[in-house]
Amino acid sequence: MDENKKRCAIGVDFGGTFVKMARVDEQGAIGARASFATTELKGVPGWLDEVERHVEALLADMPRDMEWAGIGVGVPGFVDYAKGFVHDLTNVPGWTAVPLAELLTKRFGKIARVDNDVNAMAVGECTYGAGQAYQHAVFLTLGTGVGGGLLINNNLYRGAYSMAGEIGHVSIDMHGVAAPTGRGGVEQYVGNKRIVERALQAIDGGRKSAILERAGGQRAAVSPKIICEAAEAGDELAREIFDFVADCLATMMASVSYLLQPQAFIIGGGVSAAGPVLFDPLRKHLNARLSPYFAERLVIKRAQLGNDAGVIGSATLTFLE
Amino acid sequence: MDENKKRCAIGVDFGGTFVKMARVDEQGAIGARASFATTELKGVPGWLDEVERHVEALLADMPRDMEWAGIGVGVPGFVDYAKGFVHDLTNVPGWTAVPLAELLTKRFGKIARVDNDVNAMAVGECTYGAGQAYQHAVFLTLGTGVGGGLLINNNLYRGAYSMAGEIGHVSIDMHGVAAPTGRGGVEQYVGNKRIVERALQAIDGGRKSAILERAGGQRAAVSPKIICEAAEAGDELAREIFDFVADCLATMMASVSYLLQPQAFIIGGGVSAAGPVLFDPLRKHLNARLSPYFAERLVIKRAQLGNDAGVIGSATLTFLE
Repeated sequence: MDENKKRCAIGVDFGGTFVKMARVDEQGAIGARASFATTELKGVPGWLDEVERHVEALLADMPRDMEWAGIGVGVPGFVDYAKGFVHDLTNVPGWTAVPLAELLTKRFGKIARVDNDVNAMAVGECTYGAGQAYQHAVFLTLGTGVGGGLLINNNLYRGAYSMAGEIGHVSIDMHGVAAPTGRGGVEQYVGNKRIVERALQAIDGGRKSAILERAGGQRAAVSPKIICEAAEAGDELAREIFDFVADCLATMMASVSYLLQPQAFIIGGGVSAAGPVLFDPLRKHLNARLSPYFAERLVIKRAQLGNDAGVIGSATLTFLE
Repeated sequence: MDENKKRCAIGVDFGGTFVKMARVDEQGAIGARASFATTELKGVPGWLDEVERHVEALLADMPRDMEWAGIGVGVPGFVDYAKGFVHDLTNVPGWTAVPLAELLTKRFGKIARVDNDVNAMAVGECTYGAGQAYQHAVFLTLGTGVGGGLLINNNLYRGAYSMAGEIGHVSIDMHGVAAPTGRGGVEQYVGNKRIVERALQAIDGGRKSAILERAGGQRAAVSPKIICEAAEAGDELAREIFDFVADCLATMMASVSYLLQPQAFIIGGGVSAAGPVLFDPLRKHLNARLSPYFAERLVIKRAQLGNDAGVIGSATLTFLE
């Protein structure tokens, strides 16, 4: 490694639908981007070939005073970070027991790191985003599910076997919705699809609401974004739904606060884009559910890196000690 | 400090009913004991006088090759460990905003450490008891309430403001029992009194059970211990109650596992004395509520230091860096 050169890394945000890639420097700035559809690929070898093709393109116009340090991948599933080993990706067939870091190192001869996608985003947010000011913080992503990453003593905490932070399975109701991961996991109430289902059920039950109209009368077009817009326009059902989502999240966040007492929750992911429609009732319910000793000093913040959190965070893994 | 001498510390286990004290050496062995009733004292100065009197007695027969390093106190309430400052003791009047470590250092001229009683017990268990083999563990005490202590990377984790580990307030039901600390906190279901209430309510509702008989017909004499004995003798209501307690605990423990993925839970406190009546259904419910990735490697262990965990742990605080 040439110490006079600046370093960059390739970050790979491996999603269930798209694989996004970027060349990222040590200031967290993106130099070049690429992406391809996850479903087009033939298993792990096909994925590796496609990644290699894009790595070459991303590095082609790298500044001369920069050198490539390595590659980091955030994946949607259970990972052993220390070994760079993918146990299983829930929504991507063919990805069970894959020694991904090893395969990447063999192919590229560089540092390769593999982590859970939410951990990678958390690393990005705490290195370059909303988490920079904190030593103890909890990162949440609100989307299809609820993901979590724990910043403890300024390091991402991965637990005994590298799977900590599965915050979507924290139960808010011991008799609640059943899933293979237990009963009443918070993501069973606030995941994208659950929010939409809740709206449609109420409408089917006769509740008046502008939600369906806003979706052009198409049930399949109803989304958290449309429900949010309806709430902003004063739609009562839409407001109730976000109040419920906020209360479910507040229940989980109160439990996490009593347990870990973080300085802050940093909240990202699609649903977090709702802004005040979500964050105002969230603060209200959290204050109601937490002793003042815990509520008063707790900061709730929106994530800052947005859609780039995944690629930036994955690249950042490469820069970690 | 004479480096040729062995060190000892005074441990003070400040309970709502009794204050227990002991002289403890660096191997965790108790050399002498004392105790006095909490209620007899006149505020903080009276407490300090009584503690001083017993410290003198406990040190009187200290071996000649030993020297007194300091005093550690575990208190039942909110504490700032770094400052040794007691915010508030829930069940002991007159103990609000007390700079206890400072007062103790002034009085004795030695190291003084003050922590939450459960944290102190956790420190004791992980230094000398059931937690010695683990780097990541969660300590639970089951008694009047449910207390918790978090061992993370081999250190007790106190959170951002020294109050982490308040595990009894982790919610298992967002619509559940209301308390100033939120709704559905697990200790609202499995605390000593709640267990007894549950038995008496079922009996009042007409359930046949030998529990009341075992308490000599005295409602006030019904205790978790008596319900446990009834369960061991095959009493169906008693077994149901412990199954429910185990399921409530399993809900909370599954949430904590998804979040932190500890290697082990170490469980102490009065209710844990129930043994298999509690631990068998606990394991069953945990397995049902946890993904195998989390359940399979998770160890559930009884605490080992028993009634001495408090004094040993409080003394151990003094030996920490």
